[in-house]
This record gives sequence, structure tokens and C-alpha cells, in this order.
Amino acid sequence: MSARLLRTSSAGPTITAGVGLFADALTAQGVSPHRVDWRPPMAGTEADLATVMADPRRVAANAEAVRRITTTRALLVDVVPAGPTLGIDPGDFLHAGPPIEWERASGPLRGALMGAAALEGLVDDPEAAAALFETGSGVTLDPCHHHDAVGPMAGVISASMWVFVVEDPETGRRSYCTLNEGLGKVLRYGAYSPEVLTRLRWMSDVLAPLLQHAVRAHGPVDLKAILAQMLQMGDEAHNRNRAGTLMLLRELLPELINAPAPAAEVAEAVRFVSANDHFFLNLAMPACKLTMDAARDLPGSTVVVAMARNGTDFGIQVAGTGAEWFTGPAQLADGLFLGDYGPDDANPDIGDSAITETAGLGGFAMAAAPAIVRFVGGQVADALAHSRRMYEITVAEHPMYSIPILDFRGVATGIDVTKVVRTQILPQINTGMAGRVAGVGQVGAGLVTPPAEIFPTALAALARRAVGQSE
Amino acid sequence: MSARLLRTSSAGPTITAGVGLFADALTAQGVSPHRVDWRPPMAGTEADLATVMADPRRVAANAEAVRRITTTRALLVDVVPAGPTLGIDPGDFLHAGPPIEWERASGPLRGALMGAAALEGLVDDPEAAAALFETGSGVTLDPCHHHDAVGPMAGVISASMWVFVVEDPETGRRSYCTLNEGLGKVLRYGAYSPEVLTRLRWMSDVLAPLLQHAVRAHGPVDLKAILAQMLQMGDEAHNRNRAGTLMLLRELLPELINAPAPAAEVAEAVRFVSANDHFFLNLAMPACKLTMDAARDLPGSTVVVAMARNGTDFGIQVAGTGAEWFTGPAQLADGLFLGDYGPDDANPDIGDSAITETAGLGGFAMAAAPAIVRFVGGQVADALAHSRRMYEITVAEHPMYSIPILDFRGVATGIDVTKVVRTQILPQINTGMAGRVAGVGQVGAGLVTPPAEIFPTALAALARRAVGQSE
Repeated sequence: MSARLLRTSSAGPTITAGVGLFADALTAQGVSPHRVDWRPPMAGTEADLATVMADPRRVAANAEAVRRITTTRALLVDVVPAGPTLGIDPGDFLHAGPPIEWERASGPLRGALMGAAALEGLVDDPEAAAALFETGSGVTLDPCHHHDAVGPMAGVISASMWVFVVEDPETGRRSYCTLNEGLGKVLRYGAYSPEVLTRLRWMSDVLAPLLQHAVRAHGPVDLKAILAQMLQMGDEAHNRNRAGTLMLLRELLPELINAPAPAAEVAEAVRFVSANDHFFLNLAMPACKLTMDAARDLPGSTVVVAMARNGTDFGIQVAGTGAEWFTGPAQLADGLFLGDYGPDDANPDIGDSAITETAGLGGFAMAAAPAIVRFVGGQVADALAHSRRMYEITVAEHPMYSIPILDFRGVATGIDVTKVVRTQILPQINTGMAGRVAGVGQVGAGLVTPPAEIFPTALAALARRAVGQSE
Repeated sequence: MSARLLRTSSAGPTITAGVGLFADALTAQGVSPHRVDWRPPMAGTEADLATVMADPRRVAANAEAVRRITTTRALLVDVVPAGPTLGIDPGDFLHAGPPIEWERASGPLRGALMGAAALEGLVDDPEAAAALFETGSGVTLDPCHHHDAVGPMAGVISASMWVFVVEDPETGRRSYCTLNEGLGKVLRYGAYSPEVLTRLRWMSDVLAPLLQHAVRAHGPVDLKAILAQMLQMGDEAHNRNRAGTLMLLRELLPELINAPAPAAEVAEAVRFVSANDHFFLNLAMPACKLTMDAARDLPGSTVVVAMARNGTDFGIQVAGTGAEWFTGPAQLADGLFLGDYGPDDANPDIGDSAITETAGLGGFAMAAAPAIVRFVGGQVADALAHSRRMYEITVAEHPMYSIPILDFRGVATGIDVTKVVRTQILPQINTGMAGRVAGVGQVGAGLVTPPAEIFPTALAALARRAVGQSE
């Protein structure tokens, strides 16, 4: 969809060569065109690229993916306990990213699991939970993504937590996410001290039931409408959710005030939500998941439908390759650190929150949120350049999510595996950084990309499934 | 303070000649330097310009103005009835802009006065109030600015309305502004239908007392801290106050919820405030007034301390010339119209809200709020260009109000009469447009400037008061 752009190092005008569509057409016919790219495709991908580009289903499948991604609605319809809704009992734990076992789990994921085990009453002391997970006795691990859910950072969901329910009214499909705990010493960053567990219990006992009342009394809250407004208010919906949080609060306030609960509890709940600029992240994420899940299982489509990390592995799933994960090592982010923490303290990239970038937000929409460079590092010009560069690897400009400073251009949406492989431009993600040792919590925030090698791997899988291939 | 810039027609890089400070120094010594300006000074101003630039008090007085403007704090400390606080009885009416009599008053100002007369019980039917104002029997008109107050659009304040109280804790100085009614058919745009008066009565009876409780229970709210955050969230604090309104609500919510009032009333008040994206304008304005009033009465200073319009005249006041108003005809804004309204329906520029531009916000900060072009017209590149151009006519870059997209450069603050005269660049204001016929209400929003001739007039007054002048 986007014309081929030559990269420049500044945020200034970009030279448009404009040969992309023509070159695409040639490649689609199996011809190897002479391109003006500044980089060759990733090494060893020529044959797979030719096969996939020649798949006669590709163009229509990607167009259908765009149609579904851009038209799917995402309404907050309920807040409910996770256990019965996601089919998990105490002892079952969902986590961020592709599948992983305890042995290979990173510090922050281990910390979050230990805290959750104590929360569920499996152990009194979170430290005692390590033995449980080592033996695997009475506990199970499974990705959130396998249960229509997403979780930020460690992304651990256990039975007694509550989740937001987000629904597409056309199909009835739903997605789920826990409630955001705030920053610093919190479970999702691997902390499990008593304050962490006390907060989680209050969230399940007081906050979530109040929100349930408010959402049910209010009726569905249109999350994509809020996301669209956020981009006009300096949020990119991954690491800036300040305006989104306030707009959610605005929607639910009258019904919160009318809730059949003591005013002091309502006031405390409102204070908690409004003091946490990241509260809306846990709604942006399931909204993005619902959106991207709409494009799953489209044979021939080269669009990425999920990017997720468990702190050890970074995985992607692609519309044309079903439930298969293509994984490689999670990378260390480059960014800013809290207090005395430094790069040695940081765990590799973790969390399902890269679903926001998968849907065109987060790192893809940083031009809408230039103030974010004070949180994740870099210069304002970098933020603009990141957003502009993403048009080179995506299939659409989102008609609803526009970036004012780019003359209201729609965000780059729908990562195309073939474009990543051909340009060697990797999706730009911004992210919080967890301490690599279990129990520490957040140590910073920064910028990161997927490991490059997962895209050729995904391309190979697309090639194996391609129609009209000669092998 | 700012280096001399050559204007370009795009939002691209600007060539900096960088001779400004040097040229200023030469001019300060009475030498006429060879400048690279793209325009000569305004016609006939050479002698006054030389006199004022040579005033030995000027540099220090302007530096002191900057110090006061940038360090004055502005805390919301109370919400109270206007009558006893501003010393006005039923029959006394304050209005926006410089002084004016009924005979010369524009349609929207007349409409607002007629509505306010009915609100105060002087007449039953607003239409009957015209006769009152024509005879002047039992009614008085006086500018808000003469009572430490400001009012948006018609800016009418009458005794039974309530006002925000904004205080500088260092000096105890205070400023005042009514509560914002919303958009469309509202008194400040000259509408006076029964729904307008019913809303105003509810605001005095329910909303204002609730806000009084919340502000008193909460303690002072730091308005400049909110203004600084607004610039990172797409507001420019004149025609975009969406984030500011939500942040105010966030501050006051817990105490609103705890207010000794029926939950339904609290919910209705919260719904009213949160549904009005302009609610914070009436706090941005008194915060800016308090800030700029700090620079009043500084002999030798060429800094503008107020810009205000009554719908007929546009007036400015200058730090070095006391309470004197320099006035000229209010201009028609160029912008976008609501519904079927067009330029013929619009009244000339009206309101005290240009105090935001006087303090470096509003039109001066549009680069922070590119989405505003959808409200006031123009292109995103224009919004950036307006903000950049204002550095040429101001004395400071505000250390607290930074614009992310301009690499966190502080907003251009403190309009210098000599710079306006020398460059012929006029302050850029964005504004709502009132219907020119009393009773109509809002018809659009757009961009406007002061009449150019008031700056040479102000310069002449500064010259008459200059020290060391030869005449």
C-alpha cells in the first residue's frame, strides 16, 4: 500500500522513489526486478520470497486482512473473574509470549508466577513456589494468547484475578486482559513482595467489582474511539496511556459514583485509576488483540497477527500460518533506566504488549506522542522517523487512527512478513524493562525490535504453504 | 531573547540569521544597525522605536517582566459567588475587552448582557433588557480586567454567577473567572434562550457549590502544572482544553465523590464537566491573567500584559504604560463554520481569552496541538509555523511550557511591542466565533490577529514615557 521510501537519517522530507507497487507487481509475476533498495533482502530468502510473492492468494488475502483489521470493533462490555471465564483453576497460570517452561523462564516471569502462586493460596511465601514450578506438581503454564487473552510484561493471569472483557459486536468474539497495577514494584514486572499481593487482592475485592458495576450500568465502551482520540492527545497506547486512562474514567465516572458501594471505596478506586497513567494499556492491548485476531487463519496472507515475548523468546504468528509460533531470542531494549539501575539489571524484552505495535500503535505511532522520548529515550526526530519507517513494512494506513503531526496520516498498520524480509527493516517496539532478577520490578523503559531471524523463518513457513509452488 | 529568524513558507528547517541580540545591543545604544529583516518596521515608527529602544530601563525592565511571568504561580484555591467577591451588585455587569458602552456594543455582547439581566431578575424576558441598557437606568458596565477578572467571548459576569479564585501564593494576588458553560447556545456567545438561563441557574445552584466543596477539601490545585502537561497532550489551552479538563476532574474527583450531596447531583456535575472539553479554558484564562498581571506597572518595559476584545474594539495593555488601553477595530476571524453559518454571520473578534496568547499559550502554542486545525482551520504545517513565528516578537521561551514536537522548546512568551512594530509580525490568536446577531450563539472558530495600528500607538505611549528622550 505504501510507496517505497528511501530512508534518511533525519525527520526531514523523505525522498519517494515510488517504484514499490511496480516492483511488487513484477515480483508477483515471478520476475526479479532491479530495485533501488538501500539494502538487499535478508540473506537466503530469495527463493522463499519469490514463492510467497507469487502465491496468487496473497494480494486478496492481505486486502481481506486489512479490511478485517480496520473494521473490527472493540467494545469493553464487562469485567469478570478470570477463572471461570478463561477456564483456569487455581494452579493454572497464563503468561505472556509464546509457550515456555519454568526451566527456561526469565527472572521476571518466574517472579510473577511465584507471586501469583501465593495469591492463589498454593503457598504462603512466594519464595516457596519455585519448588512447585520446578516439579510441575499441580501447576500448569500456558500462553495468554492461547486463551484469547493478553498480558503486559510477565502477563501472568491466575484464577482469582479479574479481567476486562472486550467484544466485537459483529461476531461476538471476545478478548481479555487483567487490570493494570501501576508502575514500579508490581507483579507484571516480576515483583512479589507483600505490598504487591495486597494491592492485587484489593483490585479483585474492591476495584474490579466496582468497575464491573460501572461498565454494566454504562453499557459498552467503544475502545477504538478512545484509541483514535488518544493519538490526538499525545498517547501512543503502549507506553503513554495518560489521555486514554482519563477518557475511560470520564466514561465510567457517573456510574462509578452511582455504584452501591461506600463513597470512600469509590473515591479510592477512582484515585487508584486516575493516578496510574498506564491503566488504559490493559484495554488498548485486548482491543488490539481482538482487532488482529480478526485476520487470523487467512490462507496466503503474509500479515503478522501477533508479536509477543515471554522474557526469553520473542514470537510472532502470521495470518497465513495458523497457530504456529516463529520464535527467536528476546532482545535487550535500549532506553532510560530508573534510579541507579543500568543495562546489566535489565531482562530481555517481555510481554504481550507488542500486540499494540502489531495493530499499528505503540512504537508505530510514536510520532503522535513525541513526549514519549522522555520515557523511552531518543530524540523527537527519532519518534517521527520510527513512525515514518513503519510505512515501509506494512500493508495499510489505518483510516481511524491518524497522526496529526504527519498531516493526519493513518498509522502504519499490518506488518507484512515479505516487506520486513525484503527491506530488513524490523518492527519498532517501545517497552517497559523488567529487572532480570525475580522480585525486582521495573528498571526502565526503551526501544527494542524482534530478532530478525524469525521473519525468514515465518517466510519459509508461508512458502511451504504457498499455492503454485514448484517444490 | 530569541535569535532573528527568516520566515519560510513551510514547516521545514528555518534559517537562523542569529544577529538579533547583536542588533538589539546596537539599537539599545541608539545606533541604527543594518538588519536582514524581510520587512521594514511599521510606517512612521522609526523615531518612537529609536526612543524606546534607547530607554536605559528597557532591558532590565523586560528581564524583570520575564522573571515575574515565568515564576508567578497560579493555584485554584476556591469557587465563590461573584457578587461579594468582585464587588458587583445585581445591575452591575462586567464584560470582556476594553471599556465600551451599550451603544457601541456588538450583538453577542448585547445578547449576553440581556441574558444576564434576566438571570439577575432585572427583567423577566431578556428582550426587555435592551431598554434598560439603552437608558442606563440601574445598570453599569465595566471590563472584567478592571476587577482582576477575565471572561471568554462576551465575558459577562453578573452578581449571581460563581467564579473560580486563582491565587499567587507568594503575593496573595488573585484572579477570577466564571465557570465554562460548554459550546453552542451559551451566554458567552450571546445566546439567551430559556435553556441558557436554566443551565446558568443550575451552575450556580448545584455545580459551583459542589466544586467549592471539592476545591476546599482538596486544597490548592496547581494550574500551571496542569497547563504544562496539557502541552504534552495536544492542548494549547485556548481552543483545545480537553486534556486539561480531564486532569482537573482527576484532581477533584475523590473530593467530589465524598461531597455531602446526593450521588445523582454529583454524577450530573461530573457528567457536565467531563462532557465539556472547554471547561478548563476558564481556569487557563485566570491563570494566564495572574501571570501577566505580575508584569504590570514596570516602567520602561515594552511587554504586552493584556490583549482583550469586546466584539467591537481590540485592546492591549503594556507593562510600561500602566492601565492605559490601546485600541483599534476587532477583526473578523478566518476559520471554519458550524452547520450552515458563513463569514457573514460572524461577529468580529471578542473575549478576554486572548490572555492565553498574551502568556504564550493558545495561538502561540498551536505546534503542541496540531489537531486543532480541524477546529480552527488551516494545515498542520501552519500550526507549526505560527508557533515558530511568535519567537520573533517575544522576549522569552517559557521554561515550564514546552512543545514536544519543537524538541521541547519553551513556548514564545511575552509579546514585545518593539518587536511587533519592527517585524510587522502580529500576535497569532485562535478563537471561537460568535454570531453577530444577539441570541445566535457560536457560529465557528478560526484564526485572527489584533489590528496592527494599536502597536504603533502603544509604542508612541512608551516613547512619551521614555527616559532620556530628546523631545
